[in-house]
Amino acid sequence: MKQSSLIIGRQPLIEAIRSGRAVDKILLQRNASGDAIAEIRQLAREHNVPIQVVPVEKLASMTRANHQGVLAYAGLVQYLDLQQVIDHVVAEGQTPLFVMLDGVTDVRNIGAIARSALCCGAQALIIPDKGVGALNEEAMKSSAGALERINICRVNSLLKAVDSLHFNGIKVFTSEMNAARKVFELPLQEPCCIVMGSEDKGVQSYIRKAADEHFSIPMAGDFDSLNVSVAAGIILYEALKHRMKP
Amino acid sequence: MKQSSLIIGRQPLIEAIRSGRAVDKILLQRNASGDAIAEIRQLAREHNVPIQVVPVEKLASMTRANHQGVLAYAGLVQYLDLQQVIDHVVAEGQTPLFVMLDGVTDVRNIGAIARSALCCGAQALIIPDKGVGALNEEAMKSSAGALERINICRVNSLLKAVDSLHFNGIKVFTSEMNAARKVFELPLQEPCCIVMGSEDKGVQSYIRKAADEHFSIPMAGDFDSLNVSVAAGIILYEALKHRMKP
Repeated sequence: MKQSSLIIGRQPLIEAIRSGRAVDKILLQRNASGDAIAEIRQLAREHNVPIQVVPVEKLASMTRANHQGVLAYAGLVQYLDLQQVIDHVVAEGQTPLFVMLDGVTDVRNIGAIARSALCCGAQALIIPDKGVGALNEEAMKSSAGALERINICRVNSLLKAVDSLHFNGIKVFTSEMNAARKVFELPLQEPCCIVMGSEDKGVQSYIRKAADEHFSIPMAGDFDSLNVSVAAGIILYEALKHRMKP
Repeated sequence: MKQSSLIIGRQPLIEAIRSGRAVDKILLQRNASGDAIAEIRQLAREHNVPIQVVPVEKLASMTRANHQGVLAYAGLVQYLDLQQVIDHVVAEGQTPLFVMLDGVTDVRNIGAIARSALCCGAQALIIPDKGVGALNEEAMKSSAGALERINICRVNSLLKAVDSLHFNGIKVFTSEMNAARKVFELPLQEPCCIVMGSEDKGVQSYIRKAADEHFSIPMAGDFDSLNVSVAAGIILYEALKHRMKP
């Protein structure tokens, strides 16, 4: 497995982003300026890379090399553009099945969800650039290699991503504990994206409002507290069953 | 949540076991002897409590109290007798749905499986007294309280437990990657027990041979590596669906 590594200095970072290398986060020295810094800010916007402004001492504590006010964490995965992934999936004759992670913070759950997604034929994970667990080495390990094989789209707005999905005819389904519709009643054979919410708060309300369908997983009694990766696995398994040739 | 604690000394341990308190493990000083020790060995056999023989230095390093050659870890859960649980479930008019853990070592997976079991209406977990992860505080936490609510039967032989299940008309199903029968084709509405194998080796061959049916979970492609707790969740969800009133 690839190791997480630092990208040090202005030009190395610009070249890394331009070459398509995934960058998890940029640390920018407070008051850093110049054409290269402006370009880095522009590239970060285009590629949804979060920027954290830090005092120079923070950068100095991380490297003795000439950092020029800029350090970045190279990503372990390759992020892809959502529209390009949709176009590719459709061009391949596949029916889109995507998973959106809205605030899932436990990296082991993220890894397990990536495994289930790949096992059940989902083509992509959609993650926000903030508020989800990092796709770090523990997540990679928990995913048993799935995070290196599935398409991962990092977006700066989940709501815009929902708009893009809708624009491409992909329905968005979110789970809600009290929804009358059961997961197996969903039209999962159609192009769709499943949204998984955070372990404690569930799916954010503005995403829930933008979704096409709400569903629940049936429960036997009064205990209804599935682990989020188990819930995702059950939904993805249902989608696979809906899509299996009889 | 209860904290794990030590039981120190011969009579306290005998009284703890007799009163029905769960004991995870007994540490017995090498060459300890006497009537009380014989009784402890007998009680341990009856209640499936593993005994580890240790040098006196080990006991001395764990407590300054007068241990009389005996220390034990009090369990966080209450273990129940398998036959009693079967009798109780049947008397309540329920159809047995049990989960047997054969070598699942990751305590977070055990916690997640307990959650799924309780959510899907399973009445009991069957665990061996060796070779599974401890039902420790991390397992309790991952279970979101499920391990404190579901019946847990600890047995010293999974094979004997399979015999008991058969004797009571409960079928045993194990997953096998290449089994032709799919999980949704199993007669899960009947009294049954699902066996989940270890994360790396799966179900042990002697258990697989004693089982009534082997099944696989369908996969979309060449990647077939579900997390064990996700796999358990999918199977339990299928069982719940099979048992739902139309």
